[in-house]
Amino acid sequence: MSATRVRVGLLGCGNVGGALAEVLLADRERIARRTGTDLELRAVAVRDIARPRPAALPADLLTLDAGAVVSDPGVDLVVEVMGGIEPARSLVLAALGAGKPVVTANKELLASCGAELWGAAARAGRDLLFEAAVAGGVPLIRPLRESLAGERIRRVLGIVNGTTNYILSGMAESGATYAEALAEAQQLGLAEADPTADVEGFDAAAKAAIIANVAFGAGVVAGEVDREGIASIGPDDITAARRLGFAIKLLAVVEEIDGAIAARVHPAMVPLTHPLASVRGSFNAVFVEGATVGDLMFLGRGAGGAPSASAVLGDLLDAAHNLSVGGSGRTPALAALPRRPIEDLVGAYYLTLDVVDRPGVLHAVSGVLGAHSVSVRSMEQEGADEGARLVFVTHPACERDVQACLRELHGLDAVRRIGGLIRVVDQ
Amino acid sequence: MSATRVRVGLLGCGNVGGALAEVLLADRERIARRTGTDLELRAVAVRDIARPRPAALPADLLTLDAGAVVSDPGVDLVVEVMGGIEPARSLVLAALGAGKPVVTANKELLASCGAELWGAAARAGRDLLFEAAVAGGVPLIRPLRESLAGERIRRVLGIVNGTTNYILSGMAESGATYAEALAEAQQLGLAEADPTADVEGFDAAAKAAIIANVAFGAGVVAGEVDREGIASIGPDDITAARRLGFAIKLLAVVEEIDGAIAARVHPAMVPLTHPLASVRGSFNAVFVEGATVGDLMFLGRGAGGAPSASAVLGDLLDAAHNLSVGGSGRTPALAALPRRPIEDLVGAYYLTLDVVDRPGVLHAVSGVLGAHSVSVRSMEQEGADEGARLVFVTHPACERDVQACLRELHGLDAVRRIGGLIRVVDQ
Repeated sequence: MSATRVRVGLLGCGNVGGALAEVLLADRERIARRTGTDLELRAVAVRDIARPRPAALPADLLTLDAGAVVSDPGVDLVVEVMGGIEPARSLVLAALGAGKPVVTANKELLASCGAELWGAAARAGRDLLFEAAVAGGVPLIRPLRESLAGERIRRVLGIVNGTTNYILSGMAESGATYAEALAEAQQLGLAEADPTADVEGFDAAAKAAIIANVAFGAGVVAGEVDREGIASIGPDDITAARRLGFAIKLLAVVEEIDGAIAARVHPAMVPLTHPLASVRGSFNAVFVEGATVGDLMFLGRGAGGAPSASAVLGDLLDAAHNLSVGGSGRTPALAALPRRPIEDLVGAYYLTLDVVDRPGVLHAVSGVLGAHSVSVRSMEQEGADEGARLVFVTHPACERDVQACLRELHGLDAVRRIGGLIRVVDQ
Repeated sequence: MSATRVRVGLLGCGNVGGALAEVLLADRERIARRTGTDLELRAVAVRDIARPRPAALPADLLTLDAGAVVSDPGVDLVVEVMGGIEPARSLVLAALGAGKPVVTANKELLASCGAELWGAAARAGRDLLFEAAVAGGVPLIRPLRESLAGERIRRVLGIVNGTTNYILSGMAESGATYAEALAEAQQLGLAEADPTADVEGFDAAAKAAIIANVAFGAGVVAGEVDREGIASIGPDDITAARRLGFAIKLLAVVEEIDGAIAARVHPAMVPLTHPLASVRGSFNAVFVEGATVGDLMFLGRGAGGAPSASAVLGDLLDAAHNLSVGGSGRTPALAALPRRPIEDLVGAYYLTLDVVDRPGVLHAVSGVLGAHSVSVRSMEQEGADEGARLVFVTHPACERDVQACLRELHGLDAVRRIGGLIRVVDQ
């Protein structure tokens, strides 16, 4: 079988782009033999020509002009790994407009402008593939879009940010504080100097929006995702969680409830018997609950140049095949499904209160809970005197009622501080 | 968007076929709206018209004549879930010959006749899809064929038989003997009255052959897979394994070593920190090690009508899309890669010997091991007197040398019985 040549224009040559270029240059012949598609790296647009690049990358492929790569008649297919909204958005639209399939790893772009870009891809009859945008190297988007295209998906629970999972796993395994675990992650290059996007859940929220669109066709953008980070999680919460049979994980949760979509990111109590509980270090894992298929989990490396480059390569081969047979795969059909705001959700809660250690405190606190229809499944007191703390796990309750409790508890003399409020995942 | 109608002929209406028919009948409108493909169930071939069927299945769809379903000009696409080699093989070939894509869940057929059938599909330019044949509802085949098409896969480790995983998990969690755990699995309908295909590893070997073909293009058939079952695993092995930091799992292992393929099924010591170790009950999980992507794991329900029907439905929608654009997806290209027989493999081993409890026995045994270049990583004696047993874990050694040791140890007076020999998975 002689291989079909497809000429690739690469926009961006950082972590992911560099790793992809290395694979394309080193493995071109093997890939062509194995897949029947000969991927020729034709041009690479960068912001800085002088920056060090993979040794095998010929210098004459580099250019500063990304627009020229897209419009080059010698480029059949465009890979966008530059990140950010602009100029990525305009370049992707231009490529699709010129009939060129696009592969992107740009979660920020898709989480903000997905509907516009998928619409452009559908009109052009060309692929816009984005496996690397969620959970890096883990094949997730293709299984959701294709294998589970007909499945009635009920809920998706994802550990989709490796940095925060590394921090939370480190706290659980070594007893470190949040600040210590974050500093270690920064030393290892797993967290940025400014870790906000990771630890405050912005990165995970972008991925939640993409999951909502792919798994449910919901038309969600990143800004609509309810979001809470991990900075307030303390070693005490981790210890109490384990004693109660849970691990604390930052989860992206997307679910359909009576035809409405709820999408959120927050720390969650995951039962230790749940497969997500044992996902350690910087691994990502996405748990999918389907009506027919039951429970599925996809696990792997969610970040890093090489794993993401592997995902881009899979998309490239898919898009190249579709291009050679003159069509495209299926694009997600988005409907603007109604939203279910987090206040309307029902679940169990873990709640800690630093209290004055004197008789009658539990009575006062439980009175507030009861008045708001929040029923207690378990309560234990940790410490005493100045260090007295009540740890509650509730029965399923409505978030609105729980938030009303918190406001009222703030006003109680006996409550010195409201500690963690962490949502419990039901299994 | 108006949906494209595709008319489906179903061959077989047992566990999987019945569940698929139910989904197609109950969810047809939702699936058409969501995917743009309207799947019409046109005819169902069964062996016994009188057997109870899903309530919603119109009786006039049933026929005894599978050949007529395949050749019916009103059928665009054929689903084969009857199982067995013939007549399934002839029917699949006839469908492809008539230009009709085929979706099958038939692992036995693919593990024996895969090369012939994929060849026929490639010649016909039509899809032959088989997601449900390995790990039931778990999306594995599509990620391997598409997402990882360009990946240099090094090794695949799979828990691909739910029955044996249920038995081994049950032994580990309750301390049951093999016979007790098997009886429980039979009571729950998780094991057949004759459990040979599961417990002796035949089912897993068929799946290993399919994995070898999809992940490595190796041209392996089921009969070439080295195979060993779980019937000799005792509670003592499970206990010793846990003490040494392992869980015992029946694994299908396929790897490429210096261009040669090794495919085998056997019980294995899996480090407790490995994601496969915590796969419990009747779940399946497949762990993929790639050069670029790193480690991946896919987990879910490996058997049961509904999960397998979900996998078939995903294939159906894919094949229907490809049919409507007038082509097919990519078929695995098989090369007859050289085989690496199990005797040539190198790994660590867990070995137990029931011995006479007297001085000098360890010296005699270790002399045999040393003479065959098998080096000991750890040794402990369990029990004493009549119940004395030596438990060894070796450093990596060649299987041929280990087998030679066993033959010589058989001849030692001090060795009363050779217990388990279980291969250790390196991480």
